[in-house]
Amino acid sequence: MELTDAVLAGQRLALARLLTQVENDTPQGRAALNDLFPHTGQAHLIGVTGAPGTGKSSLVSQLVRAFRQPQESGEQVQVAVVAVDPTSPFTGGALLGDRVRMRELSGDPGVFIRSMASRGALGGLAWRTAAVVQVLDAAGFDLILIETVGAGQSEVDIARLAHSTLVVESPGAGDDIQASKAGILEIADILVVNKADRPGVDTTVRALKAMLGQAQAIAGKHLLKTSHDEAQQEHIGWEIPVMRTIATSGEGIPELAAAIREHRDYLQSSGDWQQRDQTRLQSELEALLQSTLLSRWRASVSRERYQQTLEELATRSISPLQAVERLLNN
Amino acid sequence: MELTDAVLAGQRLALARLLTQVENDTPQGRAALNDLFPHTGQAHLIGVTGAPGTGKSSLVSQLVRAFRQPQESGEQVQVAVVAVDPTSPFTGGALLGDRVRMRELSGDPGVFIRSMASRGALGGLAWRTAAVVQVLDAAGFDLILIETVGAGQSEVDIARLAHSTLVVESPGAGDDIQASKAGILEIADILVVNKADRPGVDTTVRALKAMLGQAQAIAGKHLLKTSHDEAQQEHIGWEIPVMRTIATSGEGIPELAAAIREHRDYLQSSGDWQQRDQTRLQSELEALLQSTLLSRWRASVSRERYQQTLEELATRSISPLQAVERLLNN
Repeated sequence: MELTDAVLAGQRLALARLLTQVENDTPQGRAALNDLFPHTGQAHLIGVTGAPGTGKSSLVSQLVRAFRQPQESGEQVQVAVVAVDPTSPFTGGALLGDRVRMRELSGDPGVFIRSMASRGALGGLAWRTAAVVQVLDAAGFDLILIETVGAGQSEVDIARLAHSTLVVESPGAGDDIQASKAGILEIADILVVNKADRPGVDTTVRALKAMLGQAQAIAGKHLLKTSHDEAQQEHIGWEIPVMRTIATSGEGIPELAAAIREHRDYLQSSGDWQQRDQTRLQSELEALLQSTLLSRWRASVSRERYQQTLEELATRSISPLQAVERLLNN
Repeated sequence: MELTDAVLAGQRLALARLLTQVENDTPQGRAALNDLFPHTGQAHLIGVTGAPGTGKSSLVSQLVRAFRQPQESGEQVQVAVVAVDPTSPFTGGALLGDRVRMRELSGDPGVFIRSMASRGALGGLAWRTAAVVQVLDAAGFDLILIETVGAGQSEVDIARLAHSTLVVESPGAGDDIQASKAGILEIADILVVNKADRPGVDTTVRALKAMLGQAQAIAGKHLLKTSHDEAQQEHIGWEIPVMRTIATSGEGIPELAAAIREHRDYLQSSGDWQQRDQTRLQSELEALLQSTLLSRWRASVSRERYQQTLEELATRSISPLQAVERLLNN
């Protein structure tokens, strides 16, 4: 309770401690999440994803700097970064270079950076990330950047968590890279071609624009026919921009920061802000339900019974479906 | 039942039909999975993963051709390919080039190719892929190649499904790409640097070997201390090779096919074959348990009650954890 109050009062050491509790899913962490939840819903959640090597971390650092510039009113926003690492606890050190770059920012008291390990802790990554973001939201950060590596299910989950999702590309990966863009275009609100001083940037921008046009045409046709409707409808009225940046020199960063603010304004005026908020909370609820149901069931079944079923599976005496039926219908 | 017999008798049309039933999780599909399960456990399951643009699909095509070469005994193995696409149903067409290439193989009656969409169907992708692989295993395919795009959780799930996992890289993606390798090294049994005629191949091979050395040194230290023990222990005795291929010309393919066979022999002689089989079945069981528990719970709760809880969440009257508690303790 004390910790929660300290977090609400803006104390950073308390915040770091509480985040560890939340990440480890301790009873104190859970209690704090309940206490803090009424204070959430204010922050603009920005997902930043894309393949490795696109310079995402540098881009995030530059964006943080841009957002920290005092606004016309003289006000300065508070910015948090959550870096989600799908890499191993063993070799996470490979990301050190990025982290050092990020740490340059941490002399600024209006910036808070948190790295998350993706494995080994309780609960799914998506749920733990959502919980960490909630704490930061309640702690009063105006902008929360959620950075993920890769292009798999975790990115889709993170996108569901964010109000605005940036997908970062880099030039010159060849035509075949387009195959991977298909999935990612569905989650992008803003496409960024970083390293725009490299050869091939025009080709990449052209290819992305062509895919966007194609995807939007097909989405139009499928409207109200598929389960992707909701996601697609959200995009109506927002034309996904393709922006060029050079994170190392800062070129294109002010324009990108402006586009992110524009997207927030668009979400708020169109009502999509609320809709995404609800979708996010529903996903979170379902993930939590699922893991809670499994852990409750686990506590109810004897270890011997489970072991025996596994053995019968291994000898092909029963199938996985039959095993589930047997285990759930005692 | 008739369909199942036809599949066991090697009829391809029946196989394709049954796979559709299984992918759609129909009662007929579920019954067939139960009937076929005792016939599984024979095939060598080979996962092929890596970032987009590495030429995975061409590599898979070439590997299929190599495996289809008659062996010394005059016997020819039957090969199946399961292509798992984390891309959208809308834009899946972007993969057409790859699929066309694969279809060149499909004139060969000893080859069967199946593409899976990753979204929109019931159940998780990992479970549905496992089910499709089971059917192909029972249908008598000696080798089943499971191809996935990307580098996220789905790859880890696929790796858990396979006996042997190939991670495909390509040269010249820069130093920063190494960050992503960390996670992927944990799942690799064989590393392949494809497009080995491109500049930078030596640097990439060197970097991968350095990371392997580092990862193995750390793994040694952590042995018996972490939850990754099982995975790490499996690697003891198998030195992960870094192989060069040029899929477009076929260079390095015979050597890669030989390394895959060697890995199978290693697994069989070390007992890891059985161990991986059991781990795989346990993962599958747990995924099934989780989704069954959720769907049973869903059927038991009223729509109004669920809706009301969602609304209270949206207004921040209750937290996600409180919502779960309320929904599960009626």
